[in-house]
Amino acid sequence: MTAFGEHPDRSGRDLFAEAGLAALEDAGLTPDDVDEVFYGNFVGTLSENQGHQGPLMSEAFGSTAPAKRIEGACASSGLAIREAARVVRNGEADVVVAGGMERMTNMDTAGATASLAVAADALYEVRPGVTFPAAYALMARAYFEQFGGDRTDLAHIAVKNHENALVNDHAHLQTEISVDDVTEAPTVADPLGLYDACPISDGASAVILTSDAYAEHHDLDAPVAITGSGQGGDRMALQDRDSFAKTPATRDAAQEAYDDATVVPDDIDVAEVHDCFTIAEVLALEALDLYEDGEAIGAARRGETTRDGPLPVNLSGGLKAKGHPVGATGTAQIAAVAKLLAGTHPRADALDSPTVGLAQNAGGTVASATVHVLEVVE
Amino acid sequence: MTAFGEHPDRSGRDLFAEAGLAALEDAGLTPDDVDEVFYGNFVGTLSENQGHQGPLMSEAFGSTAPAKRIEGACASSGLAIREAARVVRNGEADVVVAGGMERMTNMDTAGATASLAVAADALYEVRPGVTFPAAYALMARAYFEQFGGDRTDLAHIAVKNHENALVNDHAHLQTEISVDDVTEAPTVADPLGLYDACPISDGASAVILTSDAYAEHHDLDAPVAITGSGQGGDRMALQDRDSFAKTPATRDAAQEAYDDATVVPDDIDVAEVHDCFTIAEVLALEALDLYEDGEAIGAARRGETTRDGPLPVNLSGGLKAKGHPVGATGTAQIAAVAKLLAGTHPRADALDSPTVGLAQNAGGTVASATVHVLEVVE
Repeated sequence: MTAFGEHPDRSGRDLFAEAGLAALEDAGLTPDDVDEVFYGNFVGTLSENQGHQGPLMSEAFGSTAPAKRIEGACASSGLAIREAARVVRNGEADVVVAGGMERMTNMDTAGATASLAVAADALYEVRPGVTFPAAYALMARAYFEQFGGDRTDLAHIAVKNHENALVNDHAHLQTEISVDDVTEAPTVADPLGLYDACPISDGASAVILTSDAYAEHHDLDAPVAITGSGQGGDRMALQDRDSFAKTPATRDAAQEAYDDATVVPDDIDVAEVHDCFTIAEVLALEALDLYEDGEAIGAARRGETTRDGPLPVNLSGGLKAKGHPVGATGTAQIAAVAKLLAGTHPRADALDSPTVGLAQNAGGTVASATVHVLEVVE
Repeated sequence: MTAFGEHPDRSGRDLFAEAGLAALEDAGLTPDDVDEVFYGNFVGTLSENQGHQGPLMSEAFGSTAPAKRIEGACASSGLAIREAARVVRNGEADVVVAGGMERMTNMDTAGATASLAVAADALYEVRPGVTFPAAYALMARAYFEQFGGDRTDLAHIAVKNHENALVNDHAHLQTEISVDDVTEAPTVADPLGLYDACPISDGASAVILTSDAYAEHHDLDAPVAITGSGQGGDRMALQDRDSFAKTPATRDAAQEAYDDATVVPDDIDVAEVHDCFTIAEVLALEALDLYEDGEAIGAARRGETTRDGPLPVNLSGGLKAKGHPVGATGTAQIAAVAKLLAGTHPRADALDSPTVGLAQNAGGTVASATVHVLEVVE
């Protein structure tokens, strides 16, 4: 991945070229080796007046391999890697690039907020005034009402993820914060404050997937495999759901991914989950069956998901501190888990011989979700 | 498919619901039977402020099946059906909806032209002033220079496709035109005139794909199968290509699809090709190896691709007369070929026991292309 952050002087194609070429170099491959490209981007037509980015981004790293853009709001590159993994596993391609890119900081805050809002229902959510901070605030309120918890519980998640990012040079926010900083920060949408929200970031990420046979034949260093993939869907608008405090799309995606990999939640050693807001990490951990409903709210506060805890979550810093260039997030999560399992991530020292990792990516208020299970190749 | 045309009073979700439900009814299935949705849309963020349309469109026809949007400019739903077909053929799903939708007429002509331009290279084509009529005019000029041909040759293509659409109630333009009408029409971008261009349309289309085993077990009427699928890519900007008069992305897609289906070009009985401009039909027929380079320009004039000719092309009316709601076009082509092969299309009487059909869908100036081969199930 590129550094996530503000890149006012770089075009989207420039960012993706960096990520794509770095991934190829890391894999010991060249652009000519690429059979297909699955690329995630959310609002390039708004931020750069650029649609049809599949072939453009393929060209950016020196390939004319067939390329397509996949879009599912903030889950765009989670969806991209899902289709990429299917194609490789089904023997349709040997080398596939999955990745994503977003430029967001070239829009002002109102423009970025309006752009992000196209992930919600334009008629029945956005027109009445819902923004994403507001939507997740509604989810947090519903959660607190049903299960308990408070702003301080959420603050511990922000503190944890910021702390994790301190050694990650690619993270957007490398700043230590305290629980008081979070709870005393300006309220964005009650109960969520400024430090409950991820930043608006630019960046790109790319992952190389190869078949086992290809990796072996070409003597590639391929230490981690995607062994499970799942996708879930839900109704678009919050108001049409049974509960604001649960995210069944993630639950469905997780069940499919666990079954696909033949693992159970207890097997997961490390997880990257979609913490666009602190409450989203709580909802994800419960939908992933890593916690019972109502239990994940206190996980960071109890030190269970911190880097010295039994289940480190978002060691990369998560969306919260690593940053969230929307279309790049899904494959950045995959890259983080792969490096954590391979021992090459700056936070890998938090783990003791991990074998199974998980990445969860969500779109909108989780109308789309993907879950991938990654395992160390023995 | 819905009627293609102007639908000022209907939202995109309303259009797609009509297409999705009609396709399910035609297949003898219900929304609950759907395992996955692959959905093509190009500029919904610009025309309806609506991204994340996968789950929204799934919900529109009554499903919460995992859904994703695929975007490749005007090839969006050609790419959607390609991934859908892979998933079914690889045994990952039994019932998949592939489809697409676009609303274009709610923007003014300048807005629609600007929206379509996001399919080109924003930095190196659009900024210097290239629009799509201009880009295809450059391709026509290059073709004329290299191979010969003139506006009258192109006019015969427009006349043919308008004539084909006369009995198609779902077509946008059901008007008979003459060669003189075309050559005397106002010039849009020399040598292309008003009648060399497809209209700007609203509409939706959907196709149901099922596995053979599922269709047999549920006693479904599934008379046609997708037996070949291919995708090709090219550099984004015309200026970076070897020739303006050739479209290698279509050639690559065709070769892959023919090989996949184990057919040769001579086997094709009927074809729907991407005639966004008349010259595009010529370029497609040659890249598909249905004609030698330089030979397709006279095909309509010679009566070879007319409905009484040996290889009827665009019996639906094509993009030229059926209309071109961008994201809906790829699956509308598949629907047309399937109905032509099954004998249920209003122009099916032009064919004598056809067995093999082809659909070619292109994005931008053919930086993306898909080709599908369909065959009658024996």
